[in-house]
Amino acid sequence: MSKPINAAVVNAFIEGTKNVLGTMCQTNPVIGKPSLKSNSSLFGDVTGAISLTGENNGLVVLSFSKEAACTIVSRMLYEEKSDIDDDVMDAVGEMTNMITGDSRKRLSENGMNYEAGIPTVVSGENHKISAMVSDDAATVVIPFKTDKDEAFNVEFTFEPK
Amino acid sequence: MSKPINAAVVNAFIEGTKNVLGTMCQTNPVIGKPSLKSNSSLFGDVTGAISLTGENNGLVVLSFSKEAACTIVSRMLYEEKSDIDDDVMDAVGEMTNMITGDSRKRLSENGMNYEAGIPTVVSGENHKISAMVSDDAATVVIPFKTDKDEAFNVEFTFEPK
Repeated sequence: MSKPINAAVVNAFIEGTKNVLGTMCQTNPVIGKPSLKSNSSLFGDVTGAISLTGENNGLVVLSFSKEAACTIVSRMLYEEKSDIDDDVMDAVGEMTNMITGDSRKRLSENGMNYEAGIPTVVSGENHKISAMVSDDAATVVIPFKTDKDEAFNVEFTFEPK
Repeated sequence: MSKPINAAVVNAFIEGTKNVLGTMCQTNPVIGKPSLKSNSSLFGDVTGAISLTGENNGLVVLSFSKEAACTIVSRMLYEEKSDIDDDVMDAVGEMTNMITGDSRKRLSENGMNYEAGIPTVVSGENHKISAMVSDDAATVVIPFKTDKDEAFNVEFTFEPK
């Protein structure tokens, strides 16, 4: 079964991410090429996740290297951060919430309506997160870089309708 | 503001957990005293989480020590597991899904209806998970032990209605 990447959904998340990072974190990210992931696991230093429920179920995951998280959160909080402490985790949760909210508004303008769940944030060296989705679910990863060349990813998965 | 523990909700999760572990994992757990948590962070070796959306937002989290996860999953899969590998993570996701589903049915019988999101599973030594909830949200933790005295917790948080 082919899993086409829905351009409207990809664009909603790209524009949502750009808008929130630009307005809240004074960061204009470089956007890489979106691709389908063959599995639903990911690794990162700090990760925010938020569930979407509606006609079908979805999941949005923002995964940051320590460096990217510290750069972006330092700008968001106007306070220098060099480690993933509780403030950084809270800020990543807030960012996940805002980016998902902004993207949901854009999806809604395309007739796709979702409710968002409680955001969760995970930290810990070499942590691994797996989403329990069906084999037919497509996971799309959009790679971003900060202006300081630090990597973070925005991923989304939707179950088939 | 006081945060009373809703007995019907606690019982739904206790009975849901007992039922799934008994029927799927041949495990009759010992149930400790439910308590309110002062913060929404937790630590564990492997953790399953699932969002609930409805009249208000909720989150269900199952957190296992490595030993508890391996004992329960070995019985579930009829295969000896001594480490947290992909099979164990999948099984923890499936267990989170089943326990939440069973508990949701019980909540629904009490007039509380929720949609469940995509389950996620986190592993990694010293990982930390925080739920981004309002200060008024109550997080209840129900401590369980296997018959081999290995600890796991079932936690739930609901935003105020």
